[in-house]
Amino acid sequence: MCSPEVMAQVRDTIERDSRRAGMRRRDLFGAAGLAALGALAAPRTAAAAPVSSSGTVVDLTHTLTPDFPVWPGNPQFAMRPVATLGGVGSVDTGSVDTGSLGPANPASGFAVNELTYWEHTGTHLDAPAHKIAGGATAEVLPVADFVAPVVVVDIAARASSDADTVLTVADLRDWERAHGRIPARALVAMHSGWETRLAVPGGFTNLDAAGVPHAPGFDSDAVDFLVAERDIVGIGVDTLSLDHASSRDHGAHVACLGAGRYGIEALANLGAIPPVGATVVVGAPKHVAATGGPCRVLALL
Amino acid sequence: MCSPEVMAQVRDTIERDSRRAGMRRRDLFGAAGLAALGALAAPRTAAAAPVSSSGTVVDLTHTLTPDFPVWPGNPQFAMRPVATLGGVGSVDTGSVDTGSLGPANPASGFAVNELTYWEHTGTHLDAPAHKIAGGATAEVLPVADFVAPVVVVDIAARASSDADTVLTVADLRDWERAHGRIPARALVAMHSGWETRLAVPGGFTNLDAAGVPHAPGFDSDAVDFLVAERDIVGIGVDTLSLDHASSRDHGAHVACLGAGRYGIEALANLGAIPPVGATVVVGAPKHVAATGGPCRVLALL
Repeated sequence: MCSPEVMAQVRDTIERDSRRAGMRRRDLFGAAGLAALGALAAPRTAAAAPVSSSGTVVDLTHTLTPDFPVWPGNPQFAMRPVATLGGVGSVDTGSVDTGSLGPANPASGFAVNELTYWEHTGTHLDAPAHKIAGGATAEVLPVADFVAPVVVVDIAARASSDADTVLTVADLRDWERAHGRIPARALVAMHSGWETRLAVPGGFTNLDAAGVPHAPGFDSDAVDFLVAERDIVGIGVDTLSLDHASSRDHGAHVACLGAGRYGIEALANLGAIPPVGATVVVGAPKHVAATGGPCRVLALL
Repeated sequence: MCSPEVMAQVRDTIERDSRRAGMRRRDLFGAAGLAALGALAAPRTAAAAPVSSSGTVVDLTHTLTPDFPVWPGNPQFAMRPVATLGGVGSVDTGSVDTGSLGPANPASGFAVNELTYWEHTGTHLDAPAHKIAGGATAEVLPVADFVAPVVVVDIAARASSDADTVLTVADLRDWERAHGRIPARALVAMHSGWETRLAVPGGFTNLDAAGVPHAPGFDSDAVDFLVAERDIVGIGVDTLSLDHASSRDHGAHVACLGAGRYGIEALANLGAIPPVGATVVVGAPKHVAATGGPCRVLALL
């Protein structure tokens, strides 16, 4: 899948993005310079919309498991214990297993898992770089965009009978007639009701006989409208793709990520928050050169 | 490190915790049942402290890189590209590389990295299960506790001349004399100024000639006080450990995690928020049986 030429292109892309962020090559791949990046290179403050919350928190995040559905052909999320609390029998809550410190036994007395996964797994963020050459990676997106009004557009009734349906400009116009204008710098989320299919094996990915997935997504025209006319920070879906799953041109990805906005896929519990009025806080991944990654998404009501 | 007996104990612990959360063994390790966990088993709403924010967001998260300091002997964070935007030359922002869908080429036309790391890497959460047998894992912690007033206790002056110093009850009393009583359900963070050492190779882990790390942390009595007298949700540090790094008994971990509270290690930018008045939102990891994991931490001012 990754020829030397392609790998070189990826490396060039990473380096170009890094240069844009003010880093030098040795800072990105060197032995010492990277240590300082977090403290010295990251933007520290930014202005988001003011937040007022009653104190109710709704979790819009699925629990990520080795069986959580992934895009066809992608590997499942994997984890394995690499360190433990101590010897067999050390089960008293109050007991202290001091173990030994130091390199020979680095985590003795503590339980730790090793995780291995592709970035676009579980409830996760898509950064522009996931689809757009030269697009921003997740760790340099403005933090202010991770605190945003969240708008929920419900197309569940239509999706229940048409797995290939898309959220259209007409749906957004209908939503605005009912709820008022979509606020600026909002995250606009498609609620298709797809998460109920998690209870049925194969229901969430919904492959046809040819192995092609079918699930709702955004129409690219609707994304263009949201970017150009409503200045959104991003879009979210309760399915595995911003596009309807059988899309060949990935128009919603291109419209959203090409405009420098972010996407969130596999959101949970969108039916538990109102169409408008909640504030979402996106716990976006912050590893270097991230095309995206699992993220905790909390809605404040 | 992991004998069959120890592995069996880990498995038993995971299963016991899972039973407490209402899951059955086949739900935890089976092929199909896990898919439904996110939607069906997770608590969806909870009440946190009300939030009011001017809209200023401060990022308390370091950028995680393959060179970010880790606990002595732990592996570095690792990542590798596994899928790319397309062939060489597809660099126009507006171009669409449709590639092919389906299992044979699952992510063609999209850039994706594979990540591999131990949970306690970078700016990350410690769940009770990291240290306490039968303790809660991260994915079942109440979401309300991830939206909290944040209190910053500055011991940087002392830490600059004593790498083994600890944040004490006396420091908390001094803080309260200056700023008023620590609010209930707060995250109390130690600001030791340690992140400036990221610019110096080896400065952050600060190993002595014997390979023992030295860095500030919480005194266990201070944690006991915060839990019993101030009902905190958790504690945070700008170093690699809740305890001072050369601790042998890990008393701060035990006091915090043993009380069912969480910890956050390697926080960034604590000097950029006030001693009290900001609200922190913790983008805690939500994979199953998590002893912790990297998390995005944002402060709303």
